[in-house]
Amino acid sequence: MPKYYLEDFSTDWTAEYGPRRVTREEIISFAAQFDPQPMHLDEEAARHTMLGGLGASGWHTCCIMMKMIADGLLLDTASMGAPGIDEVKWLKPIRPGDSLTVRGSVTAVRASQSKPDRGFVTFLWEVFNDRGEKAMTLLCPQMVQRRRPGAAA
Amino acid sequence: MPKYYLEDFSTDWTAEYGPRRVTREEIISFAAQFDPQPMHLDEEAARHTMLGGLGASGWHTCCIMMKMIADGLLLDTASMGAPGIDEVKWLKPIRPGDSLTVRGSVTAVRASQSKPDRGFVTFLWEVFNDRGEKAMTLLCPQMVQRRRPGAAA
Repeated sequence: MPKYYLEDFSTDWTAEYGPRRVTREEIISFAAQFDPQPMHLDEEAARHTMLGGLGASGWHTCCIMMKMIADGLLLDTASMGAPGIDEVKWLKPIRPGDSLTVRGSVTAVRASQSKPDRGFVTFLWEVFNDRGEKAMTLLCPQMVQRRRPGAAA
Repeated sequence: MPKYYLEDFSTDWTAEYGPRRVTREEIISFAAQFDPQPMHLDEEAARHTMLGGLGASGWHTCCIMMKMIADGLLLDTASMGAPGIDEVKWLKPIRPGDSLTVRGSVTAVRASQSKPDRGFVTFLWEVFNDRGEKAMTLLCPQMVQRRRPGAAA
């Protein structure tokens, strides 16, 4: 049974998940499978790219973050999925050995305009490395059930 | 050596990659690693979710698309990476056995405002299933080197 419903989120909500260490092996393995660009795949080739050395695919960072959020929040939430992503910014490369922390906040909560049993929570997720640098931000609306269905907005 | 530089892209540019079949096994394996929500992980549990049956994580669709674009275009392009993603829309679930086709178009090309050796190509990527349904769209600015450095914009 879910612990968290739409009513449990407000613009005062914050959370933090992690740290989660990222290894060289998983950076290369993910890249080989999904994003085989030299800067994500090979240390020597990466030196000659704009990353200046091996760095995780931005998609890999998204996926690692997703797992941290699922374990930390969504598996306990009456979540009905997300219709998409509003914005992703890749600000710093994720290097082998970096430990990632995810900080969550809520920028908006609104009832569905058509369905009284649900609403949308817009989360801002910020990923930090262990040097305190903000490495990624992601803005994502999440559809969440109401604990008690109310009027549509 | 790259085949494609900034000068090779315009709003007339289009491309198509695929088909790429998605298996039940990889949907579940990806979900276990990165997005362990019941609707992506377990057929019986998925029946009771809003997907009404097993469907790939939206992140998985992004990653499969990324691989298709890398193989089809980016590994032959003087790409300098992407600063982020402008928008993702997940429109239809990806089901086990679906074959995905990616269609690419360009919505904007502009020179960098500060660096004369590069510019930005904004790609619209649309993912279709083999029933002709548009399953995902993604708008993404890609930084690309110029073949011949020019004036900044």
